[in-house]
Amino acid sequence: MVTSPVVNTYPLSSYTFGTKEPKMEKDTSVADRLARMKVNYMKEGMRTSVEGILLVQEHNHPHILLLQIGNTFCKLPGGRLKPGENEVEGLKRKLSSKLAANSPSLQPDWQIGECVAIWWRPNFETIMYPYCPPHITKPKECKKLFLVHLSEREYFAVPKNLKLLAVPLFELYDNIQRYGPVISTIPQQLSKLQFNMVHP
Amino acid sequence: MVTSPVVNTYPLSSYTFGTKEPKMEKDTSVADRLARMKVNYMKEGMRTSVEGILLVQEHNHPHILLLQIGNTFCKLPGGRLKPGENEVEGLKRKLSSKLAANSPSLQPDWQIGECVAIWWRPNFETIMYPYCPPHITKPKECKKLFLVHLSEREYFAVPKNLKLLAVPLFELYDNIQRYGPVISTIPQQLSKLQFNMVHP
Repeated sequence: MVTSPVVNTYPLSSYTFGTKEPKMEKDTSVADRLARMKVNYMKEGMRTSVEGILLVQEHNHPHILLLQIGNTFCKLPGGRLKPGENEVEGLKRKLSSKLAANSPSLQPDWQIGECVAIWWRPNFETIMYPYCPPHITKPKECKKLFLVHLSEREYFAVPKNLKLLAVPLFELYDNIQRYGPVISTIPQQLSKLQFNMVHP
Repeated sequence: MVTSPVVNTYPLSSYTFGTKEPKMEKDTSVADRLARMKVNYMKEGMRTSVEGILLVQEHNHPHILLLQIGNTFCKLPGGRLKPGENEVEGLKRKLSSKLAANSPSLQPDWQIGECVAIWWRPNFETIMYPYCPPHITKPKECKKLFLVHLSEREYFAVPKNLKLLAVPLFELYDNIQRYGPVISTIPQQLSKLQFNMVHP
């Protein structure tokens, strides 16, 4: 038999949530964001961003932690790598910046697992694809999604301007309108995993 | 760096295609299919089916081999396991039945790779999900999709009532209307792979 990788998931109630200073978005509009992306591309070449899929469970069903900005927009914790930065180190840095308290003694033990998806941005536009389209020789961004294996207990500090949500897979699935193409297909990308629901 | 698995893909023109006797569908309607599924479930319990993702390339872009029945319906090669049958052996048996010549000396070297997706059918209905929905304790079918690594040259014999198509990822992506939820999200499930386009 081909065995699927096993992922331990712990109840949402195992984790403790506090707050910290706001982390404001660098851009106030999509147009600003694409313009800044263009400027950075001129300086540094293709942008590589890394995002983490943090799993918890409720009612024996896997949930994913998402950061909500304002009333509707949701994103995975993560961000842009510095030029030349290692992907795993960069993702840990970004996860701490978005989700950890400032004290070094309160950093979660970020265990970065497998890459489950890669998305490509061919142009300075919002649309991304799960492959580099033919004839695109200079993609503008490559975004990688990694599984993050959480320990049984962690303390998260959430920036005051954001809300941390645990969203069930059944809510994400087939819900491109609410979550966009990247997040709404995470259930399909995790489908081969065997979730071990730990009840401490 | 976390490295992605590498998959070698060869041009479609490396492969040779012949025909063989028709393989008729067991059911002539969706209602018949669901009724037969119900009868089999009573006898044998949950159905497990296995399907293969066979990759080739054209114009440096990955393509997937699909079997077309009639003018519109497409499916992956594969089928139902016998009760207790090993998944890998069952998939090889099904691939040979759908795609290989009858002579044992002409069998392709089916190298079954990783499982990339698992879909669940909670009820005797057409709808499937990439997770077992909460509160479903007795799913009716579990369908597993495996990568199949093709050698550089193979001979395929396609049943006369079917057409074998090489469909590019960009055609499948976001095309649920044409290919359904399982096949249309294969591009997302393969996105983390590194395709090594071999030009012999």
